Amino acid sequence: MAASLGLRGAASRLWYWSGRRRPAASLAAVCSRSMASKTPVGFIGLGNMGNPMAKNLMKHGYPLILYDVFPDACKEFQEAGEQVASSPADVAEKADRIITMLPTSMNSIEVYSGANGILKKVKKGSLLIDSSTIDPSVSKELAKEVEKMGAVFMDAPVSGGVGAARSGNLTFMVGGVEDEFAAAQELLACMGSNVMYCGAVGTGQVAKICNNMLLAISMIGTAEAMNLGIRSGLDPKLLAKILNMSSGRCWSSDTYNPVPGVMDGVPSSNNYQGGFGTTLMAKDLGLAQNSATSTKSPILLGSLAHQIYRMMCAKGYSTKDFSSVFQYLREEETF
Amino acid sequence: MAASLGLRGAASRLWYWSGRRRPAASLAAVCSRSMASKTPVGFIGLGNMGNPMAKNLMKHGYPLILYDVFPDACKEFQEAGEQVASSPADVAEKADRIITMLPTSMNSIEVYSGANGILKKVKKGSLLIDSSTIDPSVSKELAKEVEKMGAVFMDAPVSGGVGAARSGNLTFMVGGVEDEFAAAQELLACMGSNVMYCGAVGTGQVAKICNNMLLAISMIGTAEAMNLGIRSGLDPKLLAKILNMSSGRCWSSDTYNPVPGVMDGVPSSNNYQGGFGTTLMAKDLGLAQNSATSTKSPILLGSLAHQIYRMMCAKGYSTKDFSSVFQYLREEETF
Amino acid sequence: MAASLGLRGAASRLWYWSGRRRPAASLAAVCSRSMASKTPVGFIGLGNMGNPMAKNLMKHGYPLILYDVFPDACKEFQEAGEQVASSPADVAEKADRIITMLPTSMNSIEVYSGANGILKKVKKGSLLIDSSTIDPSVSKELAKEVEKMGAVFMDAPVSGGVGAARSGNLTFMVGGVEDEFAAAQELLACMGSNVMYCGAVGTGQVAKICNNMLLAISMIGTAEAMNLGIRSGLDPKLLAKILNMSSGRCWSSDTYNPVPGVMDGVPSSNNYQGGFGTTLMAKDLGLAQNSATSTKSPILLGSLAHQIYRMMCAKGYSTKDFSSVFQYLREEETF
Amino acid sequence: MAASLGLRGAASRLWYWSGRRRPAASLAAVCSRSMASKTPVGFIGLGNMGNPMAKNLMKHGYPLILYDVFPDACKEFQEAGEQVASSPADVAEKADRIITMLPTSMNSIEVYSGANGILKKVKKGSLLIDSSTIDPSVSKELAKEVEKMGAVFMDAPVSGGVGAARSGNLTFMVGGVEDEFAAAQELLACMGSNVMYCGAVGTGQVAKICNNMLLAISMIGTAEAMNLGIRSGLDPKLLAKILNMSSGRCWSSDTYNPVPGVMDGVPSSNNYQGGFGTTLMAKDLGLAQNSATSTKSPILLGSLAHQIYRMMCAKGYSTKDFSSVFQYLREEETF
Repeated sequence: MAASLGLRGAASRLWYWSGRRRPAASLAAVCSRSMASKTPVGFIGLGNMGNPMAKNLMKHGYPLILYDVFPDACKEFQEAGEQVASSPADVAEKADRIITMLPTSMNSIEVYSGANGILKKVKKGSLLIDSSTIDPSVSKELAKEVEKMGAVFMDAPVSGGVGAARSGNLTFMVGGVEDEFAAAQELLACMGSNVMYCGAVGTGQVAKICNNMLLAISMIGTAEAMNLGIRSGLDPKLLAKILNMSSGRCWSSDTYNPVPGVMDGVPSSNNYQGGFGTTLMAKDLGLAQNSATSTKSPILLGSLAHQIYRMMCAKGYSTKDFSSVFQYLREEETF
Repeated sequence: MAASLGLRGAASRLWYWSGRRRPAASLAAVCSRSMASKTPVGFIGLGNMGNPMAKNLMKHGYPLILYDVFPDACKEFQEAGEQVASSPADVAEKADRIITMLPTSMNSIEVYSGANGILKKVKKGSLLIDSSTIDPSVSKELAKEVEKMGAVFMDAPVSGGVGAARSGNLTFMVGGVEDEFAAAQELLACMGSNVMYCGAVGTGQVAKICNNMLLAISMIGTAEAMNLGIRSGLDPKLLAKILNMSSGRCWSSDTYNPVPGVMDGVPSSNNYQGGFGTTLMAKDLGLAQNSATSTKSPILLGSLAHQIYRMMCAKGYSTKDFSSVFQYLREEETF
Repeated sequence: MAASLGLRGAASRLWYWSGRRRPAASLAAVCSRSMASKTPVGFIGLGNMGNPMAKNLMKHGYPLILYDVFPDACKEFQEAGEQVASSPADVAEKADRIITMLPTSMNSIEVYSGANGILKKVKKGSLLIDSSTIDPSVSKELAKEVEKMGAVFMDAPVSGGVGAARSGNLTFMVGGVEDEFAAAQELLACMGSNVMYCGAVGTGQVAKICNNMLLAISMIGTAEAMNLGIRSGLDPKLLAKILNMSSGRCWSSDTYNPVPGVMDGVPSSNNYQGGFGTTLMAKDLGLAQNSATSTKSPILLGSLAHQIYRMMCAKGYSTKDFSSVFQYLREEETF
Repeated sequence: MAASLGLRGAASRLWYWSGRRRPAASLAAVCSRSMASKTPVGFIGLGNMGNPMAKNLMKHGYPLILYDVFPDACKEFQEAGEQVASSPADVAEKADRIITMLPTSMNSIEVYSGANGILKKVKKGSLLIDSSTIDPSVSKELAKEVEKMGAVFMDAPVSGGVGAARSGNLTFMVGGVEDEFAAAQELLACMGSNVMYCGAVGTGQVAKICNNMLLAISMIGTAEAMNLGIRSGLDPKLLAKILNMSSGRCWSSDTYNPVPGVMDGVPSSNNYQGGFGTTLMAKDLGLAQNSATSTKSPILLGSLAHQIYRMMCAKGYSTKDFSSVFQYLREEETF
């Protein structure tokens, strides 16, 4: 694998590591200085998340080789001087580090193993990082196929949503061979403020799934507790304050409260616009369900949370933020 | 009600308020200085919680009039020079401020409205504070009866458990007439570090119930997420770290993690000894269930959490800390 | 109690017993013959259920003493020559057998123990039969109070709905002293085709509650299974046929199928009009929840079924038949 | 496909159809008479279910070509004169009608598409019937591959358990091309008393899964209702009788009651030995969960039932009959 390290620009990686510990301002300076030495990075999947992530790689001086099934998605990058490829295989021919950001397990399988997939032309020693949130067993399967070609696969799903993608503050949860983590981190640190190594391939997905399952549970729990309190005569702000000082405290109560008017700047105070859509949460809970079934882990609340978000999707909440479960529990609907 | 204020020592209350803001050391000094001026306080129910609470009142210089159905419970107080009454009625005859700390709604009804209950001898203007965790509708009922006798009733359930009761760091959630809150706070502040006014009578109970329901939900959710992650190959400490940096973060994950070995000084690292027993959690969830049914508030996860703790009680977990739900979900039982 | 038997017309009861075993036609003949000998029966609560029940008593030749909080409810009976009382106490003064049919526990408490309640004027040896569906613990409490007055109380909730009430085909589930069952049966058999003795006071309610909880669970289960099958490509009628030949068979699948078009003559084929309203099911599940909490019986599915019907009430399904849960699970709502 | 019909012995099928309508005694005579004309049938998977199924085919005069991963499983058939093959491919070379009965989706994939799988040597026009209970999407995938080889695939999972397998009274739920149903039915009718055509490939699995999900739900519901009633003072037999006369009636209450002592001849009266194991129910619920997730069908109770059986597997109930959920809900465990 020593040879492959050269391909990925081991030198720039080394200084980058130390660069990460400097304040943001000096980091920008460092980036522009190092630009000349950077080899191109492939990026496949330029949707709501992929688009700002790719831009952050550009800002850090990486030339990009881009691909998206919708050619329009590449346009603005092309106009900015980046190179557009004709297929995932074409990306793999032109770049030895590739990041993929796709909506479903099926998309990842297609992009890697499909007729014009990455694996058709992947170079030995390439580093392939899949930031899609997909089934961990699919990640493992892809990793095996990639390994057969002499390349390296890592799963690196993100948390933080579109806002964090724009500001470069995503959290990456990374699974794969530990020796390759530093190489992945070089790129991921351009797009996120936390890059966590989780263990073997697939564990990035597992960490993401576990977090989101707990998030869904505590969000619904917060909505139920707030609704019960309000209907029993408590003031919403006061109740939130009490919960946040007590053992009921959670991210959903203190940072992203689902009750309109309790906090500013969160989706609940903006008619549940923006944020993390109910459909996406239902999808992640479906992945949690699959993992639980295949590992025979009982998830009583997780499973019920899954069904609740499934119901909400069927009732017109698909595109609303997932904190709209509070609205769903209320007597009068307002949409 | 102006007359009643005199009975309760309005003067001492005023200085006490400022005293609360001083550091603990000087507070103790203040306490001993003020001892002479304090009128006795009744205390009924000297169990695991009531015992240390009463001691904290003593430390703050309040002479006590004590009662418990089990005479032995009063012994150590008697030996320390405090006065023991023969019944709740007897307490009411001797003290115009009474705190009750009882296990169930039925006990509160008995102590207030029973044949030898407080109401048989309560003085006009007395302040009766019930710190029991009971059904809010019972609190409201008791408040009505107390009001008929010209006295004041407040519900003031606590959170924080035996440890906080000993160290005087309980949180009190207080419901009742707002004008009387300061009078209640004078006493409660001797036993707790947070005294929250929640609104009309019963809202203290509601706040407590809502908090504990959310706590139960997020504890089970944490246990499910940790178990799923571990069974899928993640290191428990690493997973806890990731959750605590992410949107899955909650008190149960960052302060009271249910997985043995993840944190020190919590019940999960002590074979689930101590802490807040599963039976007590099941009881509180039963109260949440009743409130939800009577206010017609849907509590999908809360209701399932209730049933899970109900099952655990039937399976030998009654006296274990409620975080033992992690153990309950695991394949191999260890007791 | 021997004296009281006389008051209730022991003689007519004896022949009635044998009369029950005759075919309906001859029974009617018997009824008209025996009319002269019958003592009046009190009936309190003339709502959707009480109205047709009282009429069936009339048809069997019992003179009625009627009361309802809404005087209009008595009008048609008055016009038919029956006597209207001014209060439950007034009914108790004029009749020594009384049937009550009321919507909630609170109503039963008021009618029995209220300021003008039955207990104010009840005669020794009277037989009081409460056909309301209420909390079994309230039934037990009322029974104690009635017993103190030297009278007899039985709980006798019904199943079968308005249709069965009209046709005299209700099922009565009766709790109370076994020796008095025959006396109760004399009256109940005029209104129902099944009169089941269940045991001590309160067990009638328990039987009703257990049945309805299981009914709610299997109805939701049927709706989920039918929906899953249909969405996976199965024909609804064929799927129903398979279930009904197999171990998934239940009353909700073979007699009251919730999928429009599968069966004729059921609410699902009539836009969920008529039948047993969602609100009433939610109420009964609330009683099941209370009983489960007080007996510490885990009801995982029962509790979730409760919350689902609770949600449905909040979403516009209150007055629809409870089989509309199928519609609630579907993607597109049609109302 | 006309040619293939000849391969499968259209003639014998025709007389068999009429034979099915004759009484069992004469059928046996017919079978022995027709033996000479029958072409061999392949049978792969001779476990608890496959073994008695294969024997019933033998009894109906079909020569068998057998295979099982455990050679010992074929021994008794070999001693009875049947032919043992060396692999699924070998079976496919020697027989143009094959029945497979395997424990999981993975096993079916291996047996059909593996290195020595059926598809390696399958003849054009062969009829391949998979009686395994597996994921419907896997059935569809296998059907596509089989079709590419010019053969026919049908899914035909069974219900009825080992007892019905022995007595030839299984129910088969068959999915596949309707024109081929009669050919499948010829064989399946030797092993089952109900052979239901469900629709396109995969619908047999769906029907099975929907039935078993509803079965699991109503079994747990019955256990909860019976337990609640018993703990509230009702006699178990009486309660079962009431439910079975009322709208709570279901197969789990009237045919397979989970409470020991209520019925004879069911697992609950035999310490939950025999019957349908908890592990198998958990597996089927896992398949229901997957189907629900992929079709986005909410299954609130189905999902919770899944988790309950998952928990039971972790608590020592794996090999007990699935009606042992009643025991699981009880306070005192007896194993």
